[in-house]
Amino acid sequence: MSSSTTDPSVWVTILAGGVGSRFWPVSTPTRPKQLLPLAGDRPLIEETVDRARRLVSGDRIRVLAGAELSERFAAVLPDLPTSAYLVEPAARGTAPVLAWAAWTILREDPDACMVSLHADHEVVPEEAFAARIREAAELAQRERLLVTLGVEPDRPETGYGYIQPGAPIPGPAEGAARVAAFHEKPDAETAARYVDEGFLWNTGIFVWRADVLLEEIRAHAPEVADALPRLDEGDVPGFFDACVPVTVDVAVLERSERVGVLTATFRWDDVGSWASLPRTRPGDEAGNVAVGRLTAVDSRNNVVFAEEGAVVLFGVDDLVVVRTDDVTFVTHRKRAPELKTLVAALPTDLRDPEAG
Amino acid sequence: MSSSTTDPSVWVTILAGGVGSRFWPVSTPTRPKQLLPLAGDRPLIEETVDRARRLVSGDRIRVLAGAELSERFAAVLPDLPTSAYLVEPAARGTAPVLAWAAWTILREDPDACMVSLHADHEVVPEEAFAARIREAAELAQRERLLVTLGVEPDRPETGYGYIQPGAPIPGPAEGAARVAAFHEKPDAETAARYVDEGFLWNTGIFVWRADVLLEEIRAHAPEVADALPRLDEGDVPGFFDACVPVTVDVAVLERSERVGVLTATFRWDDVGSWASLPRTRPGDEAGNVAVGRLTAVDSRNNVVFAEEGAVVLFGVDDLVVVRTDDVTFVTHRKRAPELKTLVAALPTDLRDPEAG
Repeated sequence: MSSSTTDPSVWVTILAGGVGSRFWPVSTPTRPKQLLPLAGDRPLIEETVDRARRLVSGDRIRVLAGAELSERFAAVLPDLPTSAYLVEPAARGTAPVLAWAAWTILREDPDACMVSLHADHEVVPEEAFAARIREAAELAQRERLLVTLGVEPDRPETGYGYIQPGAPIPGPAEGAARVAAFHEKPDAETAARYVDEGFLWNTGIFVWRADVLLEEIRAHAPEVADALPRLDEGDVPGFFDACVPVTVDVAVLERSERVGVLTATFRWDDVGSWASLPRTRPGDEAGNVAVGRLTAVDSRNNVVFAEEGAVVLFGVDDLVVVRTDDVTFVTHRKRAPELKTLVAALPTDLRDPEAG
Repeated sequence: MSSSTTDPSVWVTILAGGVGSRFWPVSTPTRPKQLLPLAGDRPLIEETVDRARRLVSGDRIRVLAGAELSERFAAVLPDLPTSAYLVEPAARGTAPVLAWAAWTILREDPDACMVSLHADHEVVPEEAFAARIREAAELAQRERLLVTLGVEPDRPETGYGYIQPGAPIPGPAEGAARVAAFHEKPDAETAARYVDEGFLWNTGIFVWRADVLLEEIRAHAPEVADALPRLDEGDVPGFFDACVPVTVDVAVLERSERVGVLTATFRWDDVGSWASLPRTRPGDEAGNVAVGRLTAVDSRNNVVFAEEGAVVLFGVDDLVVVRTDDVTFVTHRKRAPELKTLVAALPTDLRDPEAG
């Protein structure tokens, strides 16, 4: 296998559950962010599936989400077969659903190497991404490692977790290393130190053999491992019920010794909040970034999303202004990452205006 | 005549033309501010007509505006007779239309004393206002003066013109004086000096005998006086055509020697821009003033007008946020008075979204 062809055992799973309340009021339980054109002109899920198709054919893509979301994805992804949807009977964090996906894929392909993507990332350029993922798959196959993708920071970001690289791994993939440790989202001071010390952003993009993931789950993650017999009995809802909610990061990656990292050779962005939009979209000469109609006079560095109607700004800087059919939301760019907490405190009819 | 009964010769004229673009995007050419509930819960024009009714019966009220506006006023003022509308064939400033009103009223009542109100002021309490206007009418009748109402400033406001009082006028009305001079809207430093020197805000509320107004126009205001013969010929459009556009302040009050002032015994506010709303409406404990639905978290001293839908603020201060069916407008409170200039520069479909 070279880096320019695809390993026939590669599969892609897409973690596509969740709401994305940091894009409220545009994203709501009724209209989650994966269905919104936040990074480009198309819904994030559509861009992510296209990304997956660069690596594998549609029959080796699995979209992991709840029943309602899966139905809505199917409406915007007519080319993806029904078998592509692994419908979670309950949300239990990423470890259970990825274990289920690994278990399912293994029955079709004992050599399967899974690429785990999120439905709300942006990567540029897509070609470099695909090439590096192929190298990650080769590394995961050869070394039987859980391979993470890490990004060299260009700022002391406090919104991401960090990966501390360890011993280099010899082989064709440049920059491959063992992972010495994972570090949670840091405060500003710690983030600056992490950047100085050469730590990498944890993209949450993982590549592993399905059997290796299950081995490591059985070795380190009783929260999920104890429930695995239910899958062998064909009781998927019972499996999810029996799992303790936990992320794959906590249950497996932070506990396993078999973890590697490849530095990204592409630009990556977690399209995480309104404040991240200027990183993925070009602005006008005054730094205003707009989706929809904006007229900005004497106003700088604002982020605007006008789903309908127009937004007019006059003499204001560094704001986020979002206009939907039901709500106008205004905050400061620096407060945008806190939105999840705000939304949780809102009255139901504001939190999800279209639900009624 | 005492201050508790109304002079049978009193008439009220209401200057109700104009758009009020400093309340854009709620007020537009299609939907001018007089029809909006900006000071209270009812349209400004309705509140103003009620104010006039405290002084005179409906047959002695004259509403001065263009044809389209007059029609729309009639729809919200079903109790006012058709004869109440003096429909301006063209907008030529306040001097021509007040001259026409004086000329018209004089034909019905040679002793008529006109009270000239604006359709976009707030006065509180209405009883004190009515009592003071009666004193002004008595003064205007007795001394044959053009009587202005002045307000003792509570701040060095740069948005109003100022009246410099001169010699006191003896008589029953306390605080009556000759006007020494009128001063245009000052800069901040000059405004502070005006306040120190006891100057008064010019409310634009005037009380005068109709014949005295016409005498002073003939003596000082050729822009209007030269056109008066057209009225005698019954050619109202010709009169307006022949007038040079000019305000009654410039054409008459600033030139005449027969001008008096009464200090107001009521609270007065020119509901002039979004920034003025907090002076006429109560706010929440964080100083946010809202018309419509507002949820404000960690946000102070904002002015919000949500005509439909909801506005949600998070971590922002001192903003004006206006949401209409078509537009969301965000500016700083301190920039709100400049709105007229902004609106003039907007594309037509934004300036008047409902016009299309």
